[in-house]
Amino acid sequence: MNPHSATIGADDAVLNADQLERIHAWWRAANYLSVGQIYLLDNPLLREPLLPEHIKPRLLGHWGTTPGLNFVYAHLNRAIMERDLDTIYVMGPGHGGPGPVAAAWLEGTYTEAYPEITQDADGMRRLFRQFSFPGGIPSHVAPETPGSIHEGGELGYALSHAYGAAFDNPDLIVAAVVGDGEAETGPLAASWQSNKFVNPARDGTVLPILHLNGYKIANPTVLARISPEELDHLLRGYGHTPYYVEGEDPARMHQDFARALDACLDRIGQIKSRVRAGDTQRPRWPMIVLRSPKGWTGPEEVDGKQVEGTWRAHQVPFAQARENDDHLAILEQWMRSYRPEELFDRTGAPVESVITLHPAGTRRMSANPHSNGGGLLKDLRMPDFRDYAVPVDTAGTATGESTRVLGTLLRDVMAANMDDFRVFSPDENNSNRLDAVLEVTGRAWNAATLDGDDHLAPDGRVMEILSEHTVQGWLEGYLLTGRHGLFSCYEAFIHIVDSMFNQHAKWLSTTNGIPWRRPIASLNYLLTSHVWRQDHNGFSHQDPGFIDHVVNKKSDVIRVYLPPDANTLLSVADHCLRRRQYVNVVVAGKQPQLQFLDMEQAIEHCTKGIGIWDWASSDGGQEPDVVMACAGDVPTLETLAAVTILRGHFPDLRIRVVNVVDLMRLQDDRAHPHGLSDQDFDALFTTNVPVVFAYHGYPALIHRLTYRRKGHGNLHVHGYQEEGTTTTPFDMCVLNEIDRYHLAIDVIDRVPRLRDVSAHAREQLRNALIRHRSYIREHGEDMPEIRDWTWGGDPAFPPDALR
Amino acid sequence: MNPHSATIGADDAVLNADQLERIHAWWRAANYLSVGQIYLLDNPLLREPLLPEHIKPRLLGHWGTTPGLNFVYAHLNRAIMERDLDTIYVMGPGHGGPGPVAAAWLEGTYTEAYPEITQDADGMRRLFRQFSFPGGIPSHVAPETPGSIHEGGELGYALSHAYGAAFDNPDLIVAAVVGDGEAETGPLAASWQSNKFVNPARDGTVLPILHLNGYKIANPTVLARISPEELDHLLRGYGHTPYYVEGEDPARMHQDFARALDACLDRIGQIKSRVRAGDTQRPRWPMIVLRSPKGWTGPEEVDGKQVEGTWRAHQVPFAQARENDDHLAILEQWMRSYRPEELFDRTGAPVESVITLHPAGTRRMSANPHSNGGGLLKDLRMPDFRDYAVPVDTAGTATGESTRVLGTLLRDVMAANMDDFRVFSPDENNSNRLDAVLEVTGRAWNAATLDGDDHLAPDGRVMEILSEHTVQGWLEGYLLTGRHGLFSCYEAFIHIVDSMFNQHAKWLSTTNGIPWRRPIASLNYLLTSHVWRQDHNGFSHQDPGFIDHVVNKKSDVIRVYLPPDANTLLSVADHCLRRRQYVNVVVAGKQPQLQFLDMEQAIEHCTKGIGIWDWASSDGGQEPDVVMACAGDVPTLETLAAVTILRGHFPDLRIRVVNVVDLMRLQDDRAHPHGLSDQDFDALFTTNVPVVFAYHGYPALIHRLTYRRKGHGNLHVHGYQEEGTTTTPFDMCVLNEIDRYHLAIDVIDRVPRLRDVSAHAREQLRNALIRHRSYIREHGEDMPEIRDWTWGGDPAFPPDALR
Repeated sequence: MNPHSATIGADDAVLNADQLERIHAWWRAANYLSVGQIYLLDNPLLREPLLPEHIKPRLLGHWGTTPGLNFVYAHLNRAIMERDLDTIYVMGPGHGGPGPVAAAWLEGTYTEAYPEITQDADGMRRLFRQFSFPGGIPSHVAPETPGSIHEGGELGYALSHAYGAAFDNPDLIVAAVVGDGEAETGPLAASWQSNKFVNPARDGTVLPILHLNGYKIANPTVLARISPEELDHLLRGYGHTPYYVEGEDPARMHQDFARALDACLDRIGQIKSRVRAGDTQRPRWPMIVLRSPKGWTGPEEVDGKQVEGTWRAHQVPFAQARENDDHLAILEQWMRSYRPEELFDRTGAPVESVITLHPAGTRRMSANPHSNGGGLLKDLRMPDFRDYAVPVDTAGTATGESTRVLGTLLRDVMAANMDDFRVFSPDENNSNRLDAVLEVTGRAWNAATLDGDDHLAPDGRVMEILSEHTVQGWLEGYLLTGRHGLFSCYEAFIHIVDSMFNQHAKWLSTTNGIPWRRPIASLNYLLTSHVWRQDHNGFSHQDPGFIDHVVNKKSDVIRVYLPPDANTLLSVADHCLRRRQYVNVVVAGKQPQLQFLDMEQAIEHCTKGIGIWDWASSDGGQEPDVVMACAGDVPTLETLAAVTILRGHFPDLRIRVVNVVDLMRLQDDRAHPHGLSDQDFDALFTTNVPVVFAYHGYPALIHRLTYRRKGHGNLHVHGYQEEGTTTTPFDMCVLNEIDRYHLAIDVIDRVPRLRDVSAHAREQLRNALIRHRSYIREHGEDMPEIRDWTWGGDPAFPPDALR
Repeated sequence: MNPHSATIGADDAVLNADQLERIHAWWRAANYLSVGQIYLLDNPLLREPLLPEHIKPRLLGHWGTTPGLNFVYAHLNRAIMERDLDTIYVMGPGHGGPGPVAAAWLEGTYTEAYPEITQDADGMRRLFRQFSFPGGIPSHVAPETPGSIHEGGELGYALSHAYGAAFDNPDLIVAAVVGDGEAETGPLAASWQSNKFVNPARDGTVLPILHLNGYKIANPTVLARISPEELDHLLRGYGHTPYYVEGEDPARMHQDFARALDACLDRIGQIKSRVRAGDTQRPRWPMIVLRSPKGWTGPEEVDGKQVEGTWRAHQVPFAQARENDDHLAILEQWMRSYRPEELFDRTGAPVESVITLHPAGTRRMSANPHSNGGGLLKDLRMPDFRDYAVPVDTAGTATGESTRVLGTLLRDVMAANMDDFRVFSPDENNSNRLDAVLEVTGRAWNAATLDGDDHLAPDGRVMEILSEHTVQGWLEGYLLTGRHGLFSCYEAFIHIVDSMFNQHAKWLSTTNGIPWRRPIASLNYLLTSHVWRQDHNGFSHQDPGFIDHVVNKKSDVIRVYLPPDANTLLSVADHCLRRRQYVNVVVAGKQPQLQFLDMEQAIEHCTKGIGIWDWASSDGGQEPDVVMACAGDVPTLETLAAVTILRGHFPDLRIRVVNVVDLMRLQDDRAHPHGLSDQDFDALFTTNVPVVFAYHGYPALIHRLTYRRKGHGNLHVHGYQEEGTTTTPFDMCVLNEIDRYHLAIDVIDRVPRLRDVSAHAREQLRNALIRHRSYIREHGEDMPEIRDWTWGGDPAFPPDALR
C-alpha cells in the first residue's frame, strides 16, 4: 500500500483564476483583521502611517495557528456555497481566537451579535481594540465568539466535541481542526476512535483536519516529526483515509486544499449513498492533513531570527512594536502585505468580492444554528416519573436498587426522545444498573461484531467507550448543539474529567451573560458505584471529592443532589432533565438498599431539598436534644440505624432527623440561589444543640458550606476520611466512623443530659464494634443483623443490651 | 507493505518438549493459585472434595485478564533466566491482581515479604483467604503486591509508568501489558508517543504487550474489533514493529509467544548494538500483540451461556459457587483441570520443576529492586540554595522573577545529578521560566530535528510533551523506581491529572504502612503561570483549586507551600527536593514581582512556615487592631500595598501582617502534622480582632482549614471568586476583590475604632477603584502607580488623599 495514495497532486487546477483570486482575497482579509486584533488600537485601515500610539500597550494573542484556521475557513465557505452544506467549524487550536472573530465580522454575524462593532472603519477599530483588552473579548475562541461550540483554552476536546455535535444530525458536517500540539494530549489521542461509534445513516460527519504547523509554544510537535509513512499508518490505524496538503506557496496550496476538500466531500457523499443503499460496513472516513508553516504569511525574520515556520510565531511574533521602530516597521510592512486597500472599501466595509465569499443566513458557519444549540433545543418529552415509583408502605422496610429504578425511567425517556437524548458512560451503563435502557435502544457500535455480543447496534443510543474524556466530550458537544443527555460514572473516576468539567462550567457561566447565546440543557452527572460501595474494588476506587471540586465553580451553574433512595432519585432526575444551563451532580447508589419515602413524600422532600423526617424523629416538633443530619444514601441508612438504637435505649431522647437532598441548601442564600436563609437554617438545625451530621463525602465540605451559620460550632460531621480498603460494606463505614455505632456514640458523648447515664451504653456500642470486626475477619461478610436491619423491625442492636 | 510481516509463524518450535512442559506447568500453577484466591476459603489443594463452606461468602476479583498476565509472566521468566535480563513487569490490567500475587508466591518473594504466608499448604490457604477479604489484600495489583510499581485501580497509566521506569536505566527491560480496555483511555492513547523521548543509549527499553482479550466489563474493545490491517497501521503509526501471537491452544501459543518474545529481545539487542556503534536514527521498537480469550482456561460455559472468551469472564465467572451445586461442581472441575497434584508437593510447596522456572534473587520480577525504588534511592547532591539568593537590601523595592531564580538552582541540581534527576513539563518549561536548566541539558527528543530547533537532544533531561497525563505518568514511574524529579505546570491545567494525583497519593499513604516498601522521593509540583497572572489567557486558564483537591488526601502525604517571593521559593524547593513520601504542591509566580525577604529571613520564615512580618507590621508587638494575613505572592503584594495605604492614612492603626508559606500550618495539629497548636494559632491571629486574609485560591479553603479555631468567626477571606477574563493583572485582583483597595476598605469596615473616621477614606478608595477601571479601559494596561508601586516608596495611593 502506498502511504501517499491519497495525496493530492497539483497537476490539475480546481479553482479558476477568479475563484483563486477571491478565495485568496478573503484569506488576506481574515489575516489582516487577525493581525489588527493582536496589535492595533487605532488606524485600523492603515490610512495613516503606523505610529507607536496605534499599538496596544500589552500585546496578547496567538498568531501562529491563526492563518491556518483562516485558510480552512475560506475553503469551507467555498464548499458550503457550492454544495449548500450545513457545516460548523470546531477549532481545536482555539487560541487562534482572532481568526473566527475576523471571519464572523466578514460574514456580518459579528455585527448582528454585537451591533456596536459595525462593518466599517469605526467598527473595525472597535473590533481590533476589544481583542484581549480590558472590557473586551478573550484572546481564545470563547463563548463570545459567534459560531463556536468550543472554548479554546484547554486543549484536547476538538474531536470529541465534534462527534457530539454530529450525533443525530445526519446532514451536518463538522469540520474539526486538530492542532498538532493538541494531538499530543490524552483526550485528543483517545477521541480518534470515535468513528467506531458513528452511524452514517443517522449521524452527521466529522471531517478532521490535522493541522501540522510543526510547533507548540517551545517545542516541535511529535506528529510533525515522525516520518510521512508513520503518520500515514497512524491515521489509517485510526480508521481514516488521509488526504495530504503540504506546502507554503499560497496559490498552489489553495488549489491543493480545494482539491482535497472536494475529494473528501465527494467521498462523504459516496459513503452516505452507499449507506442509504444498505451497506453496513464501517466506512473509512476521509480526513485532511494540512502541513503549513506556523505563522504563515507573517514576518519571516525578526531581529535576525527566523519567525515564520518556527515556534517563535506561536504567540505575538514580536513584542516591541510600540517601543522599537524596526518592529513597528515590520508590523506595518506585514499588514500592508495583505493590501487592505483592495479588501475594504472607502467606509471600511469588506468589498463585494470578499463579502460574497461566504454563504448567506444560517449557512454561515458563524451563524449556524447548531453552534448556538439552545436555539434548537426542545423540551424532552417526559413520562410521569411518579409512574416509576417504588411502593413504600412503611419507611425503611423494603429494599430497592435506586439506579436500577432510575433505569426504567431513563428507558422511557429514551423511547420518547429517540432523536435528541442519549446516555453516556465509560463502559459502566450496566454496571451502574441502568440496563433497562437497552430494552429500547442498543449500545452505539459500528466496529466488527461477534455472536454473543450484547446489544451492540450502529444506531444505539447508549454511548460507551472506556474513556471518561471521550464520553464527556461527546456529551458536551451533544448538549452544546441543543440536545439532552446523562453521564453515569463511577464516582471516584469522574475526577478524570475534573478539568473538562471546569471548562464546561466556565462556558455556562460566561454564556449566562451573553444575550444571544440561548440556554442549553444541563450537563447531568449520575455518580454511582460510590465510595461506600466500592469496598470490593478497594482504596483506589474510593473518592467522593468531585462535589468539592464542583462547588468551587459559580453558584449560578452548580447543583448537587444526594437523594437517599429510589423515589427521591426519580424526583431529582426528573428535575435535572428539565433544567437548563446547570451542571447537576447526582450521587446515588446502585446496591439494594432500604427505601424510605413514598413518591408523594419524595416529591415534597425534594422540592424543599432539605427537611425534617418526622417519622424518624422523636422530638415531637419540640426543641430537640440532638439533630441527626444526613446527606447521601448510606449515611442516611446509618443515621436511621443509629436513631433506632438510641430511641430504643433512651426513649425520652428528643432526636430530630434532618435529611439533605439538595446540598446547596446548606449554604446561605447570599452564597447560592438554593441556599437557606439563616432563619430557615436555624429553624432546622437549631443554634444550640449538637448536630451529628453523617455526610456522603469529605466532612470538611459540610463545614465549608456552613461555617457562616450561627450554630456551626455545634456541627460534628462524619464522612469519608480516606480510610478505605477491600472489606465489607459496613466495615467501610466503621473504618470511617460513619457507621451506626460511631454515630450513636457521638450523640451520647455530645448530648449533655446523657453524660451521666451513658457510660454503659458507650461501652456496649464499642463492644459491638469489636464484635463486628472479629465477625468479618472470620466470615468475610457483615453480620446478619447488619445486613438484614430494617427500620422499625428488630433493631440490629438490641436496645436492652445498652442498659 | 504486508501488515503481518512481523507475525510469527508456527512452523518451527523454539521450546523443546521439556521447556514446553515446564512453562505450561508454571502457568497452570499460577492460574490455579489465581482461581483459588478468588474462590476459596479453605481446602486449598483440593485434597478433599470441594464443599460450600470452602467457598468465600463474597466473591470478588477479576478472572478475565489474569491467565493472560500469568502467561506473559511465565514467558518473561524463561527469557530472564536464559538471557540474565534485568526486567520489571507493569500490568496495565491491574485488576488481574491474583496473577502477580500467585507469581510472587511461586517465586518465594511473597513469603519473604509476608512471612506468615508460607510456601506450603497452610500458607496457600492464607494466601487464598486474604485475597479481597477483610483485613487482607486488595483485589487489584496494589502497593502490597511485590514487584509492582503500578496500582491497578484506575486504568491508563501502564505505558507512561513503564517509560518513567526505563529512563536512565539503560539495561532495564520494562515489560508493560496494555489491556485493550485500558487502551481506549486518553492517558494510554497519548502515552504510545513516549518512544520519541527515549534515548536508546542511556535509557532502558519498554516492551509493550498489547493484550487483546476482546472485552471490557460489558462491551467488546475497540482495538479487538478493528481489522488486522487497521491495527497494524495503528501500532506502526505509534512507531513500533508489532509481533502477533494469536490463538487459544496453549501448546501452540507457548511456542508462538516464546518465538515472538525471543524475536523482540533479539531486536532490542540489535538496536542497542547499533546505537553503541553510533547509529542515531530513532529505532522502531518491537512490541507484542497477544490475542487470547478472555478468561482463558476458565469454564467455557456456565448456565448455558458462553463464559470463556466473552465479557462474562471479566470478573468472577460465576457467583453462586457456595449456593449452587452445579456452580460448585464447575469450580472443582475447573481447578482440578490444572492438576494441582502435579504442581504442589505433599507439603503444598511448588514442586521442583515449577519452582525452577523462575530466576533467583533480585532477577525475580517480584523482587527486582527497581520495583521497590526507595531501596535504590540516593539523596540528591544539592548545591547550597543560599548561593542563588536574590539580594534584598530593603524589602519590597527590587523585583525578581521567582521561577527564573529557581531555574538557576534547578540547573545546578541537574548538573550535579545527571543520572537520577529530571524535570517534567507539558511544553511549558520555558514558559514557566525554568529555562536555565537548558544550559546544562537538552529537551529529550528522539524524533526528527530541523535547523532552528531549540535545545533538542536525545539525552535531554527536560521532559516535555503536550500531555499532562504522560508527563505525570513518566514522573511517577521515575520516582517509583528510585529517582527524583519536578513537574512544572500551569496551575489551572494541573486539574487534568487530578485523578492521577489521587492514585499516587493513595499509593504513598498505603506504602507508609508496608514495612518492606522503602520511601521514595516526593512528587514535587511547581504550579506557576497561576490564576492571578493568567489574565492574558483569560477565564479558561484561571483555577487555583488543585490545592482544594489535594488537601482531601491523607495529611501524612500532603504538603502545600505558597512562597511569596524568590528566596522563600528557593528555600521551599530545597526542602521539597530532599523529602521522601510526600506530594509537595508549590505555587509561585513567574512574572517580575517585588522581593521581600533576604535569604536568612526567608529560611527562618520557611522553617516556621507561618509568621509575623514585623517590618511590615505596625503593632509594635502589642495587641493589634487588625491582622492582615496573606498566602501567595500576589495576595502578599496586595496586602503590603494595602498596609502602606492604611499606615499612611492611620499612623496609629496597629496592623499585624502574618504571612503563610506552609498552608498546612493553618490546620490544627490534630488534623495535620504541620498544624499549629491552638495556642500558637491564637498567638498569631488573636481570638478577638478582625483578620483580613488575602489568599491565593478559593477563599472557602481557608475557612475549611481554620473552622475549628477560636477566632474563626473573625476571619474574612479574600481570594479567587471565579471572576476572571482577559484584562490587566491588577484588574484581575479588583474583579475578585483581593486588591489593595478592597483589602483596605475591608479593614476600615471591620476595625471598630475606625468606624467613625473612615467614611471619607472609604470613599476615596472607592474612587480609586473607579479611576482604575476607567484608566485600564482607556489604556489597556494598569496605572503606573500600580505597576511601579514599591514598599516604603511613594505609596500608590497618596495617604493624604484619604484624609
